[in-house]
Amino acid sequence: MRTVFHEKLDELTGQLAKLCGQAGLSMKSATQALLDADLAAAEQVISDHDQMGALRATAEQAAFALLALQQPVAGDLRVVFSAIQIIGDVERMDALAVHVAKIARLRYPDHVVYGEVSDCFADMGRLAVELGESARQVLLTPDPAAAARLREEDNAMDDLYRRLFGLLMSPTWQHGVPAAVDTALLGRFYERFADHAVEVGRRVIFVATGTLPAEEDISTY
Amino acid sequence: MRTVFHEKLDELTGQLAKLCGQAGLSMKSATQALLDADLAAAEQVISDHDQMGALRATAEQAAFALLALQQPVAGDLRVVFSAIQIIGDVERMDALAVHVAKIARLRYPDHVVYGEVSDCFADMGRLAVELGESARQVLLTPDPAAAARLREEDNAMDDLYRRLFGLLMSPTWQHGVPAAVDTALLGRFYERFADHAVEVGRRVIFVATGTLPAEEDISTY
Repeated sequence: MRTVFHEKLDELTGQLAKLCGQAGLSMKSATQALLDADLAAAEQVISDHDQMGALRATAEQAAFALLALQQPVAGDLRVVFSAIQIIGDVERMDALAVHVAKIARLRYPDHVVYGEVSDCFADMGRLAVELGESARQVLLTPDPAAAARLREEDNAMDDLYRRLFGLLMSPTWQHGVPAAVDTALLGRFYERFADHAVEVGRRVIFVATGTLPAEEDISTY
Repeated sequence: MRTVFHEKLDELTGQLAKLCGQAGLSMKSATQALLDADLAAAEQVISDHDQMGALRATAEQAAFALLALQQPVAGDLRVVFSAIQIIGDVERMDALAVHVAKIARLRYPDHVVYGEVSDCFADMGRLAVELGESARQVLLTPDPAAAARLREEDNAMDDLYRRLFGLLMSPTWQHGVPAAVDTALLGRFYERFADHAVEVGRRVIFVATGTLPAEEDISTY
């Protein structure tokens, strides 16, 4: 029989999963705002952020209450402990989508990115949505092997990030300094988004196995 | 009489304080590496990161053990709960110092920044050290007013960040695209460092008062 405590634990996990999926969808809209100079999409991401903040606050209070009232141990404690850390990661994932949307809004009605760079961000956007969805799924079905695969998706994001910097740092870059600055920061936002999704995967592995996988090395950028 | 439990709680807080102070010192060395093209300083920051990682892992295990074995409530629970979040912030602060050091190392023996930009980073570096030190102090002496003042130091960092972007985006920028990209990312690393220090302050206010201050708005960059 499921206890009320375990129902509350599942509810907390469900909130985290929802936040991950939503962060992916925010990055999808932010990417659309960026590629299509779509102001409405940008505004949507920015206004959704408050709603996500309310859900994060609810999840944080739920985690605190579970610790205070139920004093979980062992595997149950790992769920709550990891939830506190995952809330931090989904906060950043959502904030990074907002950063992308705000650059699109700042440059509107101009496009921020062009040609090959634009293709690169389209791929990064698709990957970000996948990462948000993968993080959502591994929270709901905590399979350590699936959680570890988030790192492979992150490797694909890192490849795109390097491709982007190859374009940016090339002597053939034609779009001037302001566009280069926007592009570099945007690239960083997608790359960090992926890193946070990997962190969610690491925490899921900790919940499932009791062992936290090693952190990834810090890249040069 | 202090109980063993409260001694362990103080020990955890002491570890977090040490991590904040060390992150500030890492940013000091990283800034020196950047401004003086000092390869040894850069290497030091990068190799210190592993040591910091070990201390973070110890702090995380201590927080877990306190929850598992002592099942704290009320104010004591707030200390442990916040510690879990602060560990995430100091991880990022240290990683951001490593990012600065890695850019300095990548461009060595060349300088990455020049003239006015260099002055800006010198100021940002000084502020980062102050922020690390302020975060350390408010952890050790949890004064909500002092914790709130971290936001003022962060405002000063934001001003510098805007000044930097004014230089970067100006038509008079003379240093080309690759230097602009480095400068933009470096600026972002300092600005994020400050944000994480502010987060530490917010958590200290939560520990002291039971109420978490509002998050700051997300800036355009």
